[in-house]
Amino acid sequence: MAMFLDDDKLHEECGVFGISGVTDEAAAHTALGLHALQHRGQEAAGVVSFDGNQFFTHRALGLVGDNFNKQSTIERLKGHMAIGHNRYSTSGEPHLRNVQPLFAEFSFGGLALAHNGNLTNAYTLREELIKGGAIFQSTSDTEVMIHLIARSKKASVADRIIDGLKQIQGAYSLVALSHDGMVGVRDPHGVRPLVLGTLGNAYVLASESCALDIIGATLVRDIEAGEMVVIKEGEITSYRPFDTTPEARTKSRFCVFEYIYFARPDSYVDNNNVYTARKAIGTELAREALVEADLVAPVPDSGLPAAIGYAEAAGLPFELGIIRNHYVGRTFIEPTDQVRHLGVKLKHNANRVILEGKRVILVDDSIVRGTTSQKIVNMVREAGAKEVHMRIASPPTTHSCFYGVDTPSRDKLLAANKSIEEMAEHIGVDSLAFISIDGVYRALGKAEGRNNESPEYCDACFTGEYAIPLTDQEAGKSGKTQADLFKTA
Amino acid sequence: MAMFLDDDKLHEECGVFGISGVTDEAAAHTALGLHALQHRGQEAAGVVSFDGNQFFTHRALGLVGDNFNKQSTIERLKGHMAIGHNRYSTSGEPHLRNVQPLFAEFSFGGLALAHNGNLTNAYTLREELIKGGAIFQSTSDTEVMIHLIARSKKASVADRIIDGLKQIQGAYSLVALSHDGMVGVRDPHGVRPLVLGTLGNAYVLASESCALDIIGATLVRDIEAGEMVVIKEGEITSYRPFDTTPEARTKSRFCVFEYIYFARPDSYVDNNNVYTARKAIGTELAREALVEADLVAPVPDSGLPAAIGYAEAAGLPFELGIIRNHYVGRTFIEPTDQVRHLGVKLKHNANRVILEGKRVILVDDSIVRGTTSQKIVNMVREAGAKEVHMRIASPPTTHSCFYGVDTPSRDKLLAANKSIEEMAEHIGVDSLAFISIDGVYRALGKAEGRNNESPEYCDACFTGEYAIPLTDQEAGKSGKTQADLFKTA
Amino acid sequence: MAMFLDDDKLHEECGVFGISGVTDEAAAHTALGLHALQHRGQEAAGVVSFDGNQFFTHRALGLVGDNFNKQSTIERLKGHMAIGHNRYSTSGEPHLRNVQPLFAEFSFGGLALAHNGNLTNAYTLREELIKGGAIFQSTSDTEVMIHLIARSKKASVADRIIDGLKQIQGAYSLVALSHDGMVGVRDPHGVRPLVLGTLGNAYVLASESCALDIIGATLVRDIEAGEMVVIKEGEITSYRPFDTTPEARTKSRFCVFEYIYFARPDSYVDNNNVYTARKAIGTELAREALVEADLVAPVPDSGLPAAIGYAEAAGLPFELGIIRNHYVGRTFIEPTDQVRHLGVKLKHNANRVILEGKRVILVDDSIVRGTTSQKIVNMVREAGAKEVHMRIASPPTTHSCFYGVDTPSRDKLLAANKSIEEMAEHIGVDSLAFISIDGVYRALGKAEGRNNESPEYCDACFTGEYAIPLTDQEAGKSGKTQADLFKTA
Amino acid sequence: MAMFLDDDKLHEECGVFGISGVTDEAAAHTALGLHALQHRGQEAAGVVSFDGNQFFTHRALGLVGDNFNKQSTIERLKGHMAIGHNRYSTSGEPHLRNVQPLFAEFSFGGLALAHNGNLTNAYTLREELIKGGAIFQSTSDTEVMIHLIARSKKASVADRIIDGLKQIQGAYSLVALSHDGMVGVRDPHGVRPLVLGTLGNAYVLASESCALDIIGATLVRDIEAGEMVVIKEGEITSYRPFDTTPEARTKSRFCVFEYIYFARPDSYVDNNNVYTARKAIGTELAREALVEADLVAPVPDSGLPAAIGYAEAAGLPFELGIIRNHYVGRTFIEPTDQVRHLGVKLKHNANRVILEGKRVILVDDSIVRGTTSQKIVNMVREAGAKEVHMRIASPPTTHSCFYGVDTPSRDKLLAANKSIEEMAEHIGVDSLAFISIDGVYRALGKAEGRNNESPEYCDACFTGEYAIPLTDQEAGKSGKTQADLFKTA
Repeated sequence: MAMFLDDDKLHEECGVFGISGVTDEAAAHTALGLHALQHRGQEAAGVVSFDGNQFFTHRALGLVGDNFNKQSTIERLKGHMAIGHNRYSTSGEPHLRNVQPLFAEFSFGGLALAHNGNLTNAYTLREELIKGGAIFQSTSDTEVMIHLIARSKKASVADRIIDGLKQIQGAYSLVALSHDGMVGVRDPHGVRPLVLGTLGNAYVLASESCALDIIGATLVRDIEAGEMVVIKEGEITSYRPFDTTPEARTKSRFCVFEYIYFARPDSYVDNNNVYTARKAIGTELAREALVEADLVAPVPDSGLPAAIGYAEAAGLPFELGIIRNHYVGRTFIEPTDQVRHLGVKLKHNANRVILEGKRVILVDDSIVRGTTSQKIVNMVREAGAKEVHMRIASPPTTHSCFYGVDTPSRDKLLAANKSIEEMAEHIGVDSLAFISIDGVYRALGKAEGRNNESPEYCDACFTGEYAIPLTDQEAGKSGKTQADLFKTA
Repeated sequence: MAMFLDDDKLHEECGVFGISGVTDEAAAHTALGLHALQHRGQEAAGVVSFDGNQFFTHRALGLVGDNFNKQSTIERLKGHMAIGHNRYSTSGEPHLRNVQPLFAEFSFGGLALAHNGNLTNAYTLREELIKGGAIFQSTSDTEVMIHLIARSKKASVADRIIDGLKQIQGAYSLVALSHDGMVGVRDPHGVRPLVLGTLGNAYVLASESCALDIIGATLVRDIEAGEMVVIKEGEITSYRPFDTTPEARTKSRFCVFEYIYFARPDSYVDNNNVYTARKAIGTELAREALVEADLVAPVPDSGLPAAIGYAEAAGLPFELGIIRNHYVGRTFIEPTDQVRHLGVKLKHNANRVILEGKRVILVDDSIVRGTTSQKIVNMVREAGAKEVHMRIASPPTTHSCFYGVDTPSRDKLLAANKSIEEMAEHIGVDSLAFISIDGVYRALGKAEGRNNESPEYCDACFTGEYAIPLTDQEAGKSGKTQADLFKTA
Repeated sequence: MAMFLDDDKLHEECGVFGISGVTDEAAAHTALGLHALQHRGQEAAGVVSFDGNQFFTHRALGLVGDNFNKQSTIERLKGHMAIGHNRYSTSGEPHLRNVQPLFAEFSFGGLALAHNGNLTNAYTLREELIKGGAIFQSTSDTEVMIHLIARSKKASVADRIIDGLKQIQGAYSLVALSHDGMVGVRDPHGVRPLVLGTLGNAYVLASESCALDIIGATLVRDIEAGEMVVIKEGEITSYRPFDTTPEARTKSRFCVFEYIYFARPDSYVDNNNVYTARKAIGTELAREALVEADLVAPVPDSGLPAAIGYAEAAGLPFELGIIRNHYVGRTFIEPTDQVRHLGVKLKHNANRVILEGKRVILVDDSIVRGTTSQKIVNMVREAGAKEVHMRIASPPTTHSCFYGVDTPSRDKLLAANKSIEEMAEHIGVDSLAFISIDGVYRALGKAEGRNNESPEYCDACFTGEYAIPLTDQEAGKSGKTQADLFKTA
Repeated sequence: MAMFLDDDKLHEECGVFGISGVTDEAAAHTALGLHALQHRGQEAAGVVSFDGNQFFTHRALGLVGDNFNKQSTIERLKGHMAIGHNRYSTSGEPHLRNVQPLFAEFSFGGLALAHNGNLTNAYTLREELIKGGAIFQSTSDTEVMIHLIARSKKASVADRIIDGLKQIQGAYSLVALSHDGMVGVRDPHGVRPLVLGTLGNAYVLASESCALDIIGATLVRDIEAGEMVVIKEGEITSYRPFDTTPEARTKSRFCVFEYIYFARPDSYVDNNNVYTARKAIGTELAREALVEADLVAPVPDSGLPAAIGYAEAAGLPFELGIIRNHYVGRTFIEPTDQVRHLGVKLKHNANRVILEGKRVILVDDSIVRGTTSQKIVNMVREAGAKEVHMRIASPPTTHSCFYGVDTPSRDKLLAANKSIEEMAEHIGVDSLAFISIDGVYRALGKAEGRNNESPEYCDACFTGEYAIPLTDQEAGKSGKTQADLFKTA
């Protein structure tokens, strides 16, 4: 009878980090970088370091700060190069087996690999590989990539990786570590983020710039869509492995939801600051969907920046009408029906003194299933609010994501099944409005709104326009067989 | 080489909760109540329930949500009455032995006891008790109270507790459970909070009203300073055990720091809402110490409400210039000097896009040692702020607290050792201002400011006026011998 | 559906060890001593050391070798004096709270206490102490002793212990540690063993001499019945605290079952070697109850020495007809009826090649419930034995022990409820014989057999003659109320 | 500073078990079987069951009785077929990754595989496989076999296994589980044991017959050298996959050390009873190397049967002169030099009363490094023995084993580096004798002794005649690279 507390948000599936060129401190820097990226995945964390001779690994279920906090752990991870990974799991029980980075021994030596994203032809490739005699130990996409690299006949690690990349489809940012250097790749559409920084003579790769900040590194630029960089002996070399492929003709389609919810507000990703973007969306939302009220209250924490923008643009007081309890474990038991309805209050509580007798505008980043919105509105009403108006800092989420984000199936997405009026009634508000898709693009600096011929972002979850082929999904294969076979450790 | 992350704040030492009269769900309600009070102590949590016949106990190191999340745990804690406790430890290693509620068997049956606060003559009493042949198993004040109750010759549990209460000095809110009912007590000055609520026919006691909200209970009133209530068979009876003592002639002195930092913003304590109080302090602070600037940024999370009040009163934009990472474990290892300076960034990061080139007013709730302030200011400057002005929503903290708050000794308190100008220079700001003690009282509704003859609050940490005798402290006994004797479990 | 593997033996309740005078190695020696005494209790182990200034404690559930095998554990237990304890629990769940040595702080400093045995007026004393305001934290007898010492008005630790000893009744060997030296005591009848040894200038106390051997210490003598020794600054002083009491007029009554089953065969206890005693019992048993057969097979491991003696005296081949599996955990799950009958085979297996077609004499040390004997005989028959004759190296066990041995109640003791013929039929043997009580005394060197006027040993389990008053048992108090009150840690 | 307690014995590397055809109880039976085989490997245990549809796995470090004792564990392992494995590790840290049975998904479904033994061309094959793109996750031989099966192009599981078997060299007994039935194989020389039993309609495979006894199964016969059986739908089919290979022309060479030390005395392996064999070796040893003495004492437990045989043949008393403590964990810390010499006493103690003033014949099964023998002899002398004669129930161990037994390198083998006279002096005995290799064969029923043209047993450790090619060893590859690469989980 356990309830997952964060059951009404989309979830990013991972964060990656890599550093090359720090004297014997690579693992410590990587652990700090992963800590800054903890919001991208809390189920597990792993680090692989390399001292030029040997690889060292530590992977554990749980938070970075809980698993990389012993002197002995860090000291064992020797070397001047390291990569790391935070994992968010989409399926069932967490298993150490699936924790990245994965490591394998090849004829040329060891290789460690970690990625953020999702391959859309992983199961199709896996079936072919198994037929060819490959043995799989995990259910992760990363292992498919490992096998492709293993089977390449090319000589250099970079060429073997390129061989593998050409066979996979999907949205991914990937870091790898071998005796031949550290590698970073973004898929041809650059859907998932990956930034490049420097720290003295060292190079750093990270999902978001906040992971550069924590170690005092300087943001240089984004790895470009379809770019692969190899960092070796203090030199960085850029490759364009996909330029001969059809995708190379398509321009970048960065995930717009990174700005809306996933990334940390203090990060720069894909050359934009996240906080500025969110606040601008709030401002735009106020322009599109103003309503008379006494105050603007964010649904914390994700609604804060947009609520500040909205309140400022609307000239209304900004108030903490809902308080969030940050001490939340993964589950909390509710033994009987008598206490089950209390669920939402584990994380949020209405601040009665602010809300009582007031016309309240609640600002949230998105609506997925609508269950949390419903409970929060109910809580706000019980606290005495006279009117409740909900303003959402994203368009209606009508389609599932297959590019590395954990989304429910369409029949669970409220906006895929109800009109806005029906949704308003369902969650119990006096009015409900979403920002338009054009509004989002305007807030992100595209003055003309969305260019429907050639949109700059991946917005499939709002528009259903999937830029990358869904091979497995169309074949009905995705994620089914493997998880069932591996029942236990 | 571990660094404690929260090393520059005062810490509340505990939260308490009790419920009597729910059908077989008392432990589940208590676990939820303790979760809402988690900010008052994260080291350990305990629940004792009673089914009219037998007592059931579960105590564990760690968060409520991590230790009371198994169906089996909750189901084993049978009964219609329960009390619970969150612990924050002031001394060294956490020990299960010290986790409250304590339970002991008496000639009249079992008694469970938990309290928030500190006894100022605990060691003096302990010495006398040991001379009289008492055996102590823990180092907690609560056990002193247990022994006093055990040695009372009175017949009823209530009378035995009163016998004990008359011998102790200090600041405490206490809940107890026996076959003779549930008991709640606030010390004669009512320094620590304790509220009374109802849930159907059940009565609830809690440190703060947010713990009533989470279970849907209704706030009735504060337990008064010097009041003891006994809840038995659905009836509540109020006693004034201290009316014959000198303290009874003194009026209430509620801890003003509860409003400034300890309590949750959505709580009512001592008949005031915490968020309103904090925002009013921010408003008052803007009146007292305005400065020309481009924006107001809170030091999250504790500076938020005051910053909103300040920004509103000053007519300046409110911006999230510092972002907080909530995924922080207790410690994080920093293996070498090279990364040690990164400490503060584990919890906070400057939001460069907001701060660069700006004149920034930072609002924080208090300055204790000043170490965190120094690092944050440095971080804000590195992010490009043109000017940094610090505004503090409390007067300078110049004295230690002996009433249940973990404060460093005076030589560690920055404001006890430096003038405001020296402090400004030390933490590196262009200007620094604290709200005046009168300003705090005004924000709390005392239009005339502090009544120095008879102040309404305990403000010893700002003024050095200690309302309750410091018997142990004057005898030089406090906390010394016991912790040393018990080295391990 | 768990089955306790060792459910058909009597169990010793503890082993004790103490050492004083080794330079900074006392805890290491104590851990080794406890390892040698592991057969006296496997539930938990504890060590308290003292460096002249401070006490250090480590107590843990499980085996010595599993809990005292870390360098850091041993190094933390500083000091030149230490005492230790192995625990076997008689009641339900193991609790760390009950693990000895217990430690308490007194007005004169700390005191650690451990004992092997059982007090027969513990609950009577406990009730009086609780009425007098004492608080109990455990359910162990030891804590009663701690309270009596705490309440003594005498000045020296030795005198306080004597004060306590005079109030208790029972069978016990006790070691204590304080700034006033290490203390060892045997009860007035000397029921439980305690030997004295030397290692260089250090003195050692131990339940059995095998614990002296493991550290290379030399056996000096037994602590005498009713003797108390105090070892302080390299000097040993002997006291006779009970000489003024009635018990002092009774001579020593050492537990005869120590020779039969409890003690290790390589130990000397009460001035006799255990192996020699067991083998002599086997020889005597052959004289009393010879039977025609092809071979003698011991029920391992406890039946080995007697079987060697029997075979030698009978002139029959000695063969390992039953093999024991030593890799046994505490429990083994048997999910269904289909496999439940396999229980006994977890520990023993018949060696078919030896038994098939043979007339077999099985030698075991005792029969308690008879369940294991029944299964072993059945197993031997299934292996093809033509005849099975059981010979038991002790008289029929007809009475419960209240002097520190875990015995079932009389209605569970096979010999208390059946004649020897009925027992033979019950366990399925062709013939069954027990050694006579006189035979046991003869094997122990009393040529005339048992002196019924004044027997040299405690043989209450065979004769029902209880030398020490059974105060609690007669009042119906033993072990009832406390265990129920403490439900959890 | 930890000392491995069992550092002076050869160690069997594993035990295997399989059962097919019991209704829904296969895992429970397998856990019991593994418990009976616990002496063959104590580091880890694993069970894989199959219910006709799905596979279920539980693998854990530690003893069977500690890891398979929860109802929930056993119930989760559903199915009417199961295989299991006990592991003894030869190299460094234990890793869950290497615990068998291994499981992999193939194009035809899942396959679980476990083996006892060692492949002598595993690293050579591994290198080829890695060059061909195979990814290895463990360092175990079993995974090589898994890859060979994966790459076979044959249709049936049996044919794929045969394909794999033909490529490997070594000594192994193997069990496998798939939808196509349970498989059992012994290598062409039948070096390691594997027996077949029945339990009702079910078939059972086990390393030794004692694992049949524990579940009440009946021993049918040995799986023959070079035989493969497939058990499917209640039918057993026998194959001779190696009959076309050169090895098939060589007759069986069962490991003679199984009789000397590895197997349990109550087991039948390779059609002989182990206890009988050991006792006969003792008898033969007495004939070859009698000496005048007062008594025969075994070094327990492994020396017992031979000592009984020796004593009987010599007409000397058999006495337990050395007592073994069975409560030994894996390691025991010895903090300083002062206590380091006590090591051997953790496991053995001399029984002074037996030995003092006597001429003692010690009987042990073998001498490896000689360190333990040296300490035991010293201990026996300190206990007062007048003369000490050592008799060894095996020939001098002069060569390493590469067929599944953990042996030190030759420079550590005492007998490879010293004459018998030098050995006697080294371990400090008055005389030392080993049984001759012919004597061993005679004891095993070969009246003529060893047939040097065509010996019936593998006795390479005594003779240096290696029947199976040592491909890896000759190429200098064995066990080197892999263990180093995988540093952690």
